[in-house]
Formats: sequence, C-alpha cells, structure tokens
Amino acid sequence: MSREATAKRREGNEIEFSRIVAFSDGVFSIAITLLVLNLGIVKGLGDGEIGSALWDQRENFVAYAISFAVIGRFWLVHHHFFGEVTAFDGRLIALNLLYLGWIVLIPFSSEVLGKYGGHTAAVVLYAANLSGVVLIGLLMTADARRAGLTVTDPVAERESWVRSSYIAAVFLFSIPVAFVAPGLAPFMWLILFFDPTSRIVARTGT
Amino acid sequence: MSREATAKRREGNEIEFSRIVAFSDGVFSIAITLLVLNLGIVKGLGDGEIGSALWDQRENFVAYAISFAVIGRFWLVHHHFFGEVTAFDGRLIALNLLYLGWIVLIPFSSEVLGKYGGHTAAVVLYAANLSGVVLIGLLMTADARRAGLTVTDPVAERESWVRSSYIAAVFLFSIPVAFVAPGLAPFMWLILFFDPTSRIVARTGT
Amino acid sequence: MSREATAKRREGNEIEFSRIVAFSDGVFSIAITLLVLNLGIVKGLGDGEIGSALWDQRENFVAYAISFAVIGRFWLVHHHFFGEVTAFDGRLIALNLLYLGWIVLIPFSSEVLGKYGGHTAAVVLYAANLSGVVLIGLLMTADARRAGLTVTDPVAERESWVRSSYIAAVFLFSIPVAFVAPGLAPFMWLILFFDPTSRIVARTGT
Amino acid sequence: MSREATAKRREGNEIEFSRIVAFSDGVFSIAITLLVLNLGIVKGLGDGEIGSALWDQRENFVAYAISFAVIGRFWLVHHHFFGEVTAFDGRLIALNLLYLGWIVLIPFSSEVLGKYGGHTAAVVLYAANLSGVVLIGLLMTADARRAGLTVTDPVAERESWVRSSYIAAVFLFSIPVAFVAPGLAPFMWLILFFDPTSRIVARTGT
Repeated sequence: MSREATAKRREGNEIEFSRIVAFSDGVFSIAITLLVLNLGIVKGLGDGEIGSALWDQRENFVAYAISFAVIGRFWLVHHHFFGEVTAFDGRLIALNLLYLGWIVLIPFSSEVLGKYGGHTAAVVLYAANLSGVVLIGLLMTADARRAGLTVTDPVAERESWVRSSYIAAVFLFSIPVAFVAPGLAPFMWLILFFDPTSRIVARTGT
Repeated sequence: MSREATAKRREGNEIEFSRIVAFSDGVFSIAITLLVLNLGIVKGLGDGEIGSALWDQRENFVAYAISFAVIGRFWLVHHHFFGEVTAFDGRLIALNLLYLGWIVLIPFSSEVLGKYGGHTAAVVLYAANLSGVVLIGLLMTADARRAGLTVTDPVAERESWVRSSYIAAVFLFSIPVAFVAPGLAPFMWLILFFDPTSRIVARTGT
Repeated sequence: MSREATAKRREGNEIEFSRIVAFSDGVFSIAITLLVLNLGIVKGLGDGEIGSALWDQRENFVAYAISFAVIGRFWLVHHHFFGEVTAFDGRLIALNLLYLGWIVLIPFSSEVLGKYGGHTAAVVLYAANLSGVVLIGLLMTADARRAGLTVTDPVAERESWVRSSYIAAVFLFSIPVAFVAPGLAPFMWLILFFDPTSRIVARTGT
Repeated sequence: MSREATAKRREGNEIEFSRIVAFSDGVFSIAITLLVLNLGIVKGLGDGEIGSALWDQRENFVAYAISFAVIGRFWLVHHHFFGEVTAFDGRLIALNLLYLGWIVLIPFSSEVLGKYGGHTAAVVLYAANLSGVVLIGLLMTADARRAGLTVTDPVAERESWVRSSYIAAVFLFSIPVAFVAPGLAPFMWLILFFDPTSRIVARTGT
C-alpha cells in the first residue's frame, strides 16, 4: 500500500515520521542520562573518607565519560542518517527498534566497565555492545538506502560512512587489545570525542 | 462545548494534540529505556567470576529482549492509532492515560520475569500485564472510532486490528502454556519481533 | 525589553515557548514513569513464594495506580493552562519550575505511601505534596492571568477552576480523614480518575 | 560543505536543529527528574519512626531543592542561548554534548551533597560540578558567537552574560566559603531561585 495518494496523507505521515524521530531521541537522551545512576556514594562515611570514596570511583567516572561520548556520538550518527530519510516502512522501524535496543544496553555495559575496567570480560562486553550497535546501524542504513527510502546526497553518505567506519574501527580494534592489555583499551575509545567531520557548517534555516 | 469555532482555536488544539502524543511518546521511550535497570552486576567479584555473573543473567537478557520488542510493538500500535485520530475528548485522554499506566508496569513485570522466568507466577503476571495493555488498547480504539474521533481509513483500520489481534492472540495463548510449560511461554513472545504488516511503504512527505 | 518588535522575533519565541512546554511534558512523563521503580521483587524466592511476594506489594500497586492517575490529572491541568498562555515572562517560567519541582516529588511521596499506606504520616505527606502542587498551580495561573499572559476564554477558565478546585478539595479533605482513618484516605483519591469535564470534544485540526 | 544551497536543505536542517534542541531538553528534563531518586525510605519502620525517618532526610530535601533550581536555571540559560543560534556545526554539537555531560553529573553531586551536606568534600564537589557547567557553557557560547553561528542581539547577549556571571559568581564564591563554613555554602546557592532578568515579557506569537 502506498500512502502518498493525497497531501492529507503526507501531512499525517510527517507527524508519524516525527514521532519515530522523537521516540528515538527520547530513548537516546534517557539512556545517556541513566549513565549517572552508575555513580553514587554510600551513607555513614566519616569526614576524611568522603574524598577517598569519590577517588575510588575514578573508573566509574572514566566509564561515564566514555559512555557519554559514545552514546552522544551514536546519536549524531542516527541524527545524520535520519536527516536523509525521506520515506519509511515497517522494516526500517523494526531495525530502528533493534538498534535502540542495543543503545539502551550501554548503561549496563558501562556499569560493568566502571566496576571491572581492568578486566578482559568487562572490556570485551563493552566493545561487543558497541560493535553490535555499529553493525546494526550499518545494516539499517544499507537496507534503507537499498529500498530507496533515503535521499542520496553522496557527500552526506560518504560522511556517514566515515563516521561509522571510524567508530567501528575503534571498537573492533579494542577487542584484541583488551585481551592483551584490558586497562588500556578504554582509553582508546576516548578519541571518539573528536569528530573527523566537525566544523562543517549547517544553517538552521531560522 | 465545541472548540472548532475558529481557526485560532484549531491552531491551539493542534498544539494540545501534539502534547498528548509527545507525552505518550515520552512515557513509551522512558518505559522502554528503564528496562536496562533490570540488568546489573555486583561489586567485588574476582577476574574469573565476572563472566559467570554475566552468564547467570541470561534470563534477564531474554526478558530485556522480549520486553523491548513488546513495548516497541505497543508503541507502533499506539502510533498507528493516533495517526488516524483527528479529534479528541476527555474520555480519549483518560483512556490513553489508563493505557499508559499499564505500559509503564511492563518494566516491573519484566523484572519479575527476568528473575523467575521458569515459574508460572512470573509468566502469568507478564502475560496478564500485556493482555491488559492490549484489551485497554482495543477499548480505547473502539471507543474513539464509535465517537467519531478518527478518520476511518478501512485499510489502516484493518491493519490495526490485525496488529492488535496478533499481539492479543500471542499473549492470551501463552497463559495456558505457562501453566503447563512456564519455561516455554516466553519464547512464544519472541515472534512479536516480526511485523505481519511490515514492508508497507509510507512516504514521510519531506 | 519587549520582544514583539518583529515577526522574526515572534518566530524565535514560538520555538522558545514550545521548549518550555516540551520540557514540562518531559518532566511529567518521566515522573509518571519513575513510579514503576517503586515496584520490585527480590531474588532467590521459591516457587510458592513469588505469588505471595507479589500479593505483599498490593499497597504499592494501589499507590502506583493513585499516583499515576494524579500525575496524569496534573498534566492535564497543566496542559489546559498552557493552552491558553499566549505570552510568557521570567516569572511564569520560574513558577512553572517551582510547580514541576513539586510534581517530581510525587514518586517519592508515592513510595512512602506504598510502604506505609495505613500510617498517618505517609498519608499526610502525600496529601501535603499534592496540595502543594495544586496551590502553586493556582498561584501560577492567577499570576499569569493577572499579568495578561493568557487569552481569557471564560469557558476554559471556569473549566480550569472546576478541575483545580475538584482536585484541591479531594486532597485537602483527605488530610483530616488521614488522622481519623489513614487507611481510608487513599481510596478517596481514586475518584480523581473521573474527569468532571470529560466528553468535551476538541477537534485537532488535522 | 555548505548546506544552505537549497530551501530543501534548509528545511532538513530545521528538523536537525530541532532534534539537537529536543535532545538537550530531554537530557535536562530527565536529569532534573532523576533528582527524586535521591529521596527514599526503608521498609519495616514502626508508626512513630516514619516521621523521624522523613525528618532525617531534611538535608536530602535541601539538596533536592537546590539542584532542582540549579538545573532549571541552567536549562533557562541553555534555552536563551539556543534561542539566538541560527546555524550550527560539529563543534557546537560536540561542545553541547560536553556541556550536557556535566549537567547529567548534577544528580550524583546532589546525592553526595544530600548525604554529606556539612562536609567540605561534598560542597566542593558540588560547586566544582556547577562551575564546570558554567565554564563550558561560556566556552560554548563564546565559540559559537565567534564562529558567527548566532544572531547577535546585544540586549539578549548582555542578558545572557548577566545570567552566566551571576551563576558563576555564586558558585565560585561558595568554594572558599565551603572550606571555612561548609554548612553555610549550600544556602548561598538558594539565591539562584531568583532571576535578575525576570519580568521581561516575551510574546509567544500564537
């Protein structure tokens, strides 16, 4: 069934499309904010113990910073991809949900990483979670483009592949590193703070 | 009181309507993201224990996957229904809140399911929660259509009934299964990942 | 400084205004969804204990139902009030934040109510929280109307006062009841599920 | 790459821009609502103990009130700044994420403050968190203005600097106070409830 018969329907679909984007943005913003729940302090410490209790959480802070950057980065990639989507179908919606299902796991993987940052299992879990996000994202993108649901702007498409490949490379390369030096791998991810495509100006149109 | 007297009012109502939809989307996206709080790991494990602690949570992961798919699916049904709503009244808003009240219980039912997946009580609670959602959804839909608050597109209406019946059938059928084989019932719900109405293209109009 | 000099500014202000509404809706939807965190189950129960553990939470379920209805109702009141706002200033924004600060306390008051539903202290805390919301809401509404920030539709204004008075009356009357029969007061609040102004049709304009 | 070639692109960018704002609003509204999770009560208290358990949390309530006012205030500052943004680039998005990453830490700093309000370490952590927010906010604002991404309204710009300086001054001054009188410093922050630029009327344009 094609729903483009009338302008009325198109109007309705614009609303529907904006709901998918709003729902995704909601999930991203909640997942990124839930990261703070991995930080905390117990009650009943003495005056001198508060500072050291905070210091003992330094790996949780590192995990927080990494995961905030990572989810923020994935949100940007999602944002860029949906900026080029002009039509959607049930499959794109289903793949988007699957994608979000892996995004929402990040606060959990981040908790494990914060508590066991120096351990291979935690680092591999984290890198596997993030690799899963990137791979499902690539599947979603490729599927939507093949189905003709996107407007193909070669520059934006190349830019999106640069972003995704950059992220995928960082995480996939960190898995073997985690087996050799689990304490080192998380620091590799910090380079995701820097965007290879930044300083590209976009007017808001207002 | 009819509020369609002037274009001014209609404009105001468009904003009101979009707030109802935005509020519902917010609730859905938060409920689906809170599912991750059912996953976690304790502190102080040894190097070899981390992997087994993660493995011990496999039922929590299954409950997470099922519930993510389920809430995502309900969101789609809600999304499709509100796509056909052209007017609303206090009763539709009240029924929508009641509906959301049952959606928000899902992270709790999912927690019980993740911890006691093989037990009849957990499976029945979960299936009852989801059946409640479907039944209130059908009530809300039927009430709004009867009150003339929707634009009746026979194709979309049939599609919506196919979706709802599909979901209701899966959950209602799983309750007797839970009394015989509680470990099996959750796997039945995984088929909700697949959308019988997917690959129906809808243009976004941008 | 008046910001109504140019159409350009007005456009910018429309965005600003929609952000205030979106922020408020976000807070409402998160607060209402966090209510589910007051429900939970411990690990390690035997097969026969799961059902009774759920049954032991019946007061938590009642508190959940009441609080969901209450926050939903406050959201509706807020929604109606902001539907008539045509201009805003720093004071309205500040009062709105103060109002939201009392809304966000409800999941906490609800937790206390769920755990100590039969006790005077819990019931009084809950009723005080909700009375605070209603009183700040009336202050915000009266202040904005006096400052000329609203479009005065006498019907909607009367409707809004009916709603607020209805809610205030229920909570204020429940405080003395809580001192005599603390177990009874919560049931009084359930009547807030019913909207005295429902079945008033509003067209969405789509 | 300039994205202002066609009206079509501008339209797309409006959507993108509104997503950045919506994402930021989502993060703010979730962070402000998560503050309630720092309040709670244990199970199994006797009738006379409930009131004193609530009273024992008075510092948590103070921390809640302060942090709610603080995040609300930062949201307003963010809101005003983005109201003047007419174009964005990767750097603004990255700085905005960094800014949000410090906002999301506030519920944690607030938890520490609520539990250890009278202790220097807690007060310094809190003031450092908030100073970090203000400083990154100033960096983001200055960078965007220098890059020509904002429409320069001298009145609004001055107003924004008044707000930021006001907040920065309060927090920076509270750090030395915390070393002398840690119990006093939090009360200084309460003056942030009052907005030096309030009662400036802005029409919504509806």
